[in-house]
Amino acid sequence: MAETTHFMDLALVEAQAAALRNEVPIGAVLVLDGRVIARSGNRTRELNDVTAHAEIAVIRMACEELGQERLAGADLYVTLEPCTMCAAAISFARIRRLYYGANDAKGGAVESGVRFFNQQTCHHAPEVYSGMAEVESAEILRAFFQGKRGE
Amino acid sequence: MAETTHFMDLALVEAQAAALRNEVPIGAVLVLDGRVIARSGNRTRELNDVTAHAEIAVIRMACEELGQERLAGADLYVTLEPCTMCAAAISFARIRRLYYGANDAKGGAVESGVRFFNQQTCHHAPEVYSGMAEVESAEILRAFFQGKRGE
Repeated sequence: MAETTHFMDLALVEAQAAALRNEVPIGAVLVLDGRVIARSGNRTRELNDVTAHAEIAVIRMACEELGQERLAGADLYVTLEPCTMCAAAISFARIRRLYYGANDAKGGAVESGVRFFNQQTCHHAPEVYSGMAEVESAEILRAFFQGKRGE
Repeated sequence: MAETTHFMDLALVEAQAAALRNEVPIGAVLVLDGRVIARSGNRTRELNDVTAHAEIAVIRMACEELGQERLAGADLYVTLEPCTMCAAAISFARIRRLYYGANDAKGGAVESGVRFFNQQTCHHAPEVYSGMAEVESAEILRAFFQGKRGE
């Protein structure tokens, strides 16, 4: 348990770093065999790429690093419930376990929305552990958007 | 109508080119103000990137080309019904119209599966035109997988 907390803490650090770059602050860490193989925050503004959510960023980085198209056995830590796009990408990449922080009723797709991993068109579902660092993850987002409204 | 047929023909050319690179043959073309701003086939194998479906490839290329994060007013032509990941990316990119060829009951997410554009967690839905070049699109896929089985 200490190890999973450590990896989620790294994801929170990535979320905080994203906020400083004026990106919606979500962070993700990808772990294989106990080793961090990719870590990133959301990069949609930096890259002008609507698909550069933190989850997609780390999946792409890890696949490039490992020179392979899928990530069987890898575990993904992310501060917010993945959206529909990311849930499908997580499935395609054959991620083993998904740990996430805050729920996202408006845009999530795991326990909210389309609940993709429970659908017939989902051909691989990770084990899901939600609610890790839920309060801290949500607080980073709340503070970011409150700051925006104050601008 | 002649113009939309022309753009779908270009998407079919991209699908054929993908087959020659040993990629699952799906092609996409992105059009803004009557001009092709990006065209690509599926590139998942070439790039070791599970997210490099034809639709995502052209959205990324177009956003980079235009230096913007969204593609309001752009129309996407793709030979197969978009999957869950791509349907969400199409929504995020604010694509205006989606034209697609063959249906994909196993993995699609527009008229099949999660029918993402009809869900509450979808915050922008394109106009959808399906069935264009449906037979040709499906035939390219059928021939590709038949060839695979023969190998």
